[in-house]
Amino acid sequence: MLVNDHYLKLQAGYLFPEIARRVSEFSQQNPDARVIKLGIGDVTEPLPPAIVDAMRRAVEDLGTREGFHGYGPEQGYQWLREKIVANEYAPRGARVEADEVFVSDGSKCDTANILDILATGPGGIDVALVDPVYPVYRDTNVMAGNTGPADESGSYEGLELLPATADNDFVAPLPKQPVDVVYLCYPNNPTGATITRDRLAEWVAWAREHEALLLFDAAYEAYVTDESLPRSIYEIEGAREVAIEFRSFSKKAGFTGVRCAWTVVPHDLVGKASDGERVALHGLWNRRHGTKFNGASYISQRGAEAVYSDAGAEQVASMNAFYLENARRVREAVEGIGLRVYGGRHCPYVWVKVPEGATSWDFFERLLQEAHIVATPGNGFGAAGEGYIRLSAFNSRENVDEATRRLERALS
Amino acid sequence: MLVNDHYLKLQAGYLFPEIARRVSEFSQQNPDARVIKLGIGDVTEPLPPAIVDAMRRAVEDLGTREGFHGYGPEQGYQWLREKIVANEYAPRGARVEADEVFVSDGSKCDTANILDILATGPGGIDVALVDPVYPVYRDTNVMAGNTGPADESGSYEGLELLPATADNDFVAPLPKQPVDVVYLCYPNNPTGATITRDRLAEWVAWAREHEALLLFDAAYEAYVTDESLPRSIYEIEGAREVAIEFRSFSKKAGFTGVRCAWTVVPHDLVGKASDGERVALHGLWNRRHGTKFNGASYISQRGAEAVYSDAGAEQVASMNAFYLENARRVREAVEGIGLRVYGGRHCPYVWVKVPEGATSWDFFERLLQEAHIVATPGNGFGAAGEGYIRLSAFNSRENVDEATRRLERALS
Repeated sequence: MLVNDHYLKLQAGYLFPEIARRVSEFSQQNPDARVIKLGIGDVTEPLPPAIVDAMRRAVEDLGTREGFHGYGPEQGYQWLREKIVANEYAPRGARVEADEVFVSDGSKCDTANILDILATGPGGIDVALVDPVYPVYRDTNVMAGNTGPADESGSYEGLELLPATADNDFVAPLPKQPVDVVYLCYPNNPTGATITRDRLAEWVAWAREHEALLLFDAAYEAYVTDESLPRSIYEIEGAREVAIEFRSFSKKAGFTGVRCAWTVVPHDLVGKASDGERVALHGLWNRRHGTKFNGASYISQRGAEAVYSDAGAEQVASMNAFYLENARRVREAVEGIGLRVYGGRHCPYVWVKVPEGATSWDFFERLLQEAHIVATPGNGFGAAGEGYIRLSAFNSRENVDEATRRLERALS
Repeated sequence: MLVNDHYLKLQAGYLFPEIARRVSEFSQQNPDARVIKLGIGDVTEPLPPAIVDAMRRAVEDLGTREGFHGYGPEQGYQWLREKIVANEYAPRGARVEADEVFVSDGSKCDTANILDILATGPGGIDVALVDPVYPVYRDTNVMAGNTGPADESGSYEGLELLPATADNDFVAPLPKQPVDVVYLCYPNNPTGATITRDRLAEWVAWAREHEALLLFDAAYEAYVTDESLPRSIYEIEGAREVAIEFRSFSKKAGFTGVRCAWTVVPHDLVGKASDGERVALHGLWNRRHGTKFNGASYISQRGAEAVYSDAGAEQVASMNAFYLENARRVREAVEGIGLRVYGGRHCPYVWVKVPEGATSWDFFERLLQEAHIVATPGNGFGAAGEGYIRLSAFNSRENVDEATRRLERALS
């Protein structure tokens, strides 16, 4: 039987295996060195007690006849969908209905699966990505046949790349040529950049003018502390007609191992069939969700619900503040060394311009050899990331403080 | 932007909404009647204590620094993959390696997502389905563009249907024309039929001869009590080169609300690229799993692991026996009335031939009006299901016994 050829265009997942190889080699040569990993985008702190309690109760529910829950609604339990609306959208004046909230087991899945409901392949959709970018957006478009082969730089024919650089505050410029779909991620992974309401409003206006779809990934919105910055694209007038939003409990509440997220597909969002007929995306996603997914775990959904209890909200906020304080310490240490630093204010990622003349890998190697610190080379996220490294603030305070001391000692 | 047109070919999910509408109408007209639902394919019994204990410990782990788990391997934790091999395959002489086991959040997702790695659309793969069939196999092929439009009977152009009837013991006949992919589900939903080793070996031989792929869904294997019947397709010599197997903790251990399943993609399984190059499916699925999925919940995986503890295995076996005893009671009651009954021996579904001259909906209506019992009309699973209804044994003993008394009273 014939396989999906497009997979053969995918470049090997080079970045993380190569990091692992270099770290392993270093550790063999330096068995006594304690390596601190600031390369990983995964949370480290224990789950807050209110969430643990809620999930313990959910597990115990399942062991009783009265409390047992089998299949839930594929779209998520109504009590969770309503709490998401009441806590995430209503207080910020963003209109989202509970039946527009589709609960899932993760934003990675959702940002990947969303392509299912769009036309793919030749004659399908034209896609633009910000560069540097979360690789899932890129790779899933390759898999779906929305691109040609890769060139030597690792870019794929047919994908428009919008370079995010220091010159544009790492906020993607509007596309120069017409495209149908744009992925936006703010606060941004990997650069830690945020987007202002005005810049986001420009994007919404552009999408409305070009009948384009914005895929807005706000996985890191919980780290926004400046109330003037948007946390949801639906805070922008008119966004309901052009945007799908991806949100997650992973980075917000430490759920990377628990698995719960949601996607908003507004009723107002309309695409076109090939005969020109207008088709609401809500119905398509609902059909996809009902046919190809069987609901998130009851236990995970009860844990997510507890994020909105009084105790849960307070504990989650304090965990977010903890990581942001980590980010502040990393940022200030690197600034103190005299390097240019971006991000790390409303996002747990610090984006560091490497010293003049060095590449991302050069500086990765220097940090590893001289400070025993693992960073992520920026070029792993796209060509525009060359000359940068990403440092993650997801770590214990002890490791962060030790890492900053080492950075200061090695690089000052 | 253009949407995926193929979704517009999908027939409305008519069956379950129509059942709900009729039950709701009946209940309004008969407010005192206590309706018993034997229509639903969802478990009802509480989770066994060994599983509850394991998941409670997992939740508590997540609340501690030492026990916290963030992202796990997308393919599942090694301890679970190894236990699956050691308990499900090795004792039956079926060779499966731990790295061929891909843990996921559900078989519905896996049986749907598997099409991602195969060619789709015109010039892609030809697909055969058994009729009647689990609708997900059919609908996901429609969504992927592997079919033409639906005809009046609800069948889609370009899908070969293999009728499973009383004449062939509800085991699908080999395809008459060459196809690339066949979905097989044994023990079967909805007919409750099983497949013998010899019949399954015929399928494996056919697939090897035609270089076809068998998608073997064994979600109900835990209900097989006859040791001569295969529980895994890999018990058949040569299956590793032609079959992907889907397995689940949902019906085996009551995990429909917990979410954990697995898929086996053997290294020996090879497809072709359009240029004729041979491509191992294992690598494609591994790439898909790593790119579009972020691992099943740590809690769910710990619960799944407990299925293989001494206490867990015993408790799960007793729960399976409980549902099978329900099935026996339903089967014998319906036989006692004089109707032809299939299934219900190694499967929790009883497949009933409705009285001569009646349609599935006629008999559905009679059961509802006269016995206040909800069944599932067989035609909802495909044209070959017309003239049958499905009764589910997933219920409390109290409900099952009350239902059988009512059946006997109303229909004898």
